[in-house]
Amino acid sequence: MLTLVIGNKNLSSWSLRPWLVLKHFDLAFEEVKLPLDTPEFHRDIVKYSPTRRVPLLIDGELKIWDSLAIAEYLNEKVQGRAWPADAATRALARAVSAEMHSGFAALRTNWSMKAVGTATVPLPAQGVADVVRVQELWHDCRSQFAQRGPWLFGEYSIADAMYAPVALRFRHYGATFSSPIAQAYQQQLVQDPHMQEWIAEAQVEVNTHFGT
Amino acid sequence: MLTLVIGNKNLSSWSLRPWLVLKHFDLAFEEVKLPLDTPEFHRDIVKYSPTRRVPLLIDGELKIWDSLAIAEYLNEKVQGRAWPADAATRALARAVSAEMHSGFAALRTNWSMKAVGTATVPLPAQGVADVVRVQELWHDCRSQFAQRGPWLFGEYSIADAMYAPVALRFRHYGATFSSPIAQAYQQQLVQDPHMQEWIAEAQVEVNTHFGT
Repeated sequence: MLTLVIGNKNLSSWSLRPWLVLKHFDLAFEEVKLPLDTPEFHRDIVKYSPTRRVPLLIDGELKIWDSLAIAEYLNEKVQGRAWPADAATRALARAVSAEMHSGFAALRTNWSMKAVGTATVPLPAQGVADVVRVQELWHDCRSQFAQRGPWLFGEYSIADAMYAPVALRFRHYGATFSSPIAQAYQQQLVQDPHMQEWIAEAQVEVNTHFGT
Repeated sequence: MLTLVIGNKNLSSWSLRPWLVLKHFDLAFEEVKLPLDTPEFHRDIVKYSPTRRVPLLIDGELKIWDSLAIAEYLNEKVQGRAWPADAATRALARAVSAEMHSGFAALRTNWSMKAVGTATVPLPAQGVADVVRVQELWHDCRSQFAQRGPWLFGEYSIADAMYAPVALRFRHYGATFSSPIAQAYQQQLVQDPHMQEWIAEAQVEVNTHFGT
C-alpha cells in the first residue's frame, strides 16, 4: 500500500500534484495530512520526511520526496501510462512539467495557492509575465492536442497535475484570460471530479480551522 | 543528429547538465553556443527556443527545453541507462535531481556558477543552509552506494550531471566541507574528464572575452 504525506488541502500546491496523479491512475493509497506551519507539523514530519517537507510518498521502506520525482515513480507503477505514449509528445509534456517545477516563482510567491475563497492581489511585472506564459503554453498545447482529448496533451497526464494548482490560483485571484482556449482548460482542471473532491476537503479544513 | 543549444561554458550552469549527460552516454551531438545577455543572444535564441532560454535540445522537428526534461529524453535514447537500474534507487536519484532542479535558490543566486577563477562571496543564512543540505545529501548517497562505484548512486547517472554545477560553485567560492566523503565526491565531479573539457573551453571564453 502506498502512503502520501501531504499538507493542508487549502494551501499545499505541491501536495495536490501527486495526489491527483494517484487519483487519476486509480492507485490505492493512504493519506496522511499534517497541518503546515504548526508545532504538530514540525513534531510529526521528522517521522516521515528526510527533507522535512511535503509531499512525501512512502512505499514500504522507500521514501520519495519532491512532487515530480513522485510522479515519475507513479508513472513507472502504471507502466508509463501517466505520460503521453509517443516519445515526442512525452518529451513536450516533461518540458512543460519541468518548466512548472522550477519556474513561475513570481506567480507562485504573490499568488500562493488557496483552494477555496477569492482575493484581489496585484501582481508585479514578472508575475504578470508568468501568467501570460502559462496561458500561452496552455493555449498552444490545447490547440495542438485537442483532437486527442480534453487535457493538455489529450489524455490526462502528469502535466495536468503539475498545472492544477495554477488553475486554483487563477480562480482564487480572478486572473483574466486572453485566450478562450486557455480559459476552457482552466475550467477543465477546476471541474475535474478529483479536484472537486480536493476543494471540498479544503472547505472542511477552513470551516474547522484545521492547522490554525 | 542531436543539437544542444547552450550558453557560455563559464556561466551557464543549466547548459552544463544536459551536455554532461550527452558526453557520459556517448550520444553524438552538435553544439550551438550563444553568448548570454548579449544582443547576439536575443537575436539568435528566437530561432531555436520557445522559452528563449538555454539549454535546448533539438532532435529533428522536436525542440525540448529544460535541463531535466532533456535528461529524461536522453535517458530514453539510451534505453534507461542514464538512471539507476533498480526502481528504488532510480526513485531516489530522481528525488535528489528534482530537489536540485527546483531548490537551493539562495545558493544558486548568491554563488552563481563560474567554471574558472575564484572569488570570496559571503552567503546569507539560507545559502549556508543550502550548502549544508547539498553536502548532507552527497554524504548520505555516497555512503550508501560507495560499493557500486564512485558516483552519487555508484554508476554515473543524471543525478551527477544535476549536481555538477554545484561542484564548480563550491570550487569557485571555496566552500568548506564538514564531510570528507562529500568533499571527495566534489573532487570526483570536478576531475571528471568531460568536466575538465568543459572547464578548458570556459577558460578559452574568458581569455577571448566571449560574450563580453
